[in-house]
Amino acid sequence: MTDADAIRSTVEQYVARFSDDRDGWLALWAPDATMEDPVGSPVRHGVEAIAEFYDQSQASSDRVELRLDGPVIVLGSEASFRFHARPTLGGTTFSVPVIDVMTFDDQARITSQRAFVDFSMLAPAVD
Amino acid sequence: MTDADAIRSTVEQYVARFSDDRDGWLALWAPDATMEDPVGSPVRHGVEAIAEFYDQSQASSDRVELRLDGPVIVLGSEASFRFHARPTLGGTTFSVPVIDVMTFDDQARITSQRAFVDFSMLAPAVD
Repeated sequence: MTDADAIRSTVEQYVARFSDDRDGWLALWAPDATMEDPVGSPVRHGVEAIAEFYDQSQASSDRVELRLDGPVIVLGSEASFRFHARPTLGGTTFSVPVIDVMTFDDQARITSQRAFVDFSMLAPAVD
Repeated sequence: MTDADAIRSTVEQYVARFSDDRDGWLALWAPDATMEDPVGSPVRHGVEAIAEFYDQSQASSDRVELRLDGPVIVLGSEASFRFHARPTLGGTTFSVPVIDVMTFDDQARITSQRAFVDFSMLAPAVD
């Protein structure tokens, strides 16, 4: 597997595992990774702080699904991709577009993440 | 106009002016802006170096059109968005997806740009 393929695989698992595989999702991060989600918010340092983000996200709705929207563009040890975050609240599923920018280590673990997401764009999902 | 609206307007003009408005496109940049296009290539500093990029891009094909693909996500003085670059060569139009990450000054001029684009994804345009 090339490095780019390994990075693409990490991104696919990042999207797939978010809804119900906490341990699997956290295993995708390097121990000392940073997360800025959304861009402009305080940067979280380390997997423990990232786990806290995960738990808060899960607690804020009945369920959150992520859906990749288009290609994962990999350049060297960096990647960017767009997805939709789809939280379900009280039986209604909403959707908001997100563009993530990530860096990776030589094991294709995420070393940094920045998420471009504007929650004023959250709207009922149409599909 | 809010800052976010001004930034969105800059991005819309960045996409619209690229094909045939060299001066208008270069006016969207702060004089000391940086450009890393594609991500991983040497960073260009200043509008003169960015003009060189523009001229090289135009010379490499008969025509290049950019088409915005989805929302411009603005957070503070930063934005990210996806578009398709569509070069036409010898009568055939190709397309490649690009995700740009930008910062802006208080006049909504671009102060930095990084472009995630992998030219191995260039393929004949389907529309």
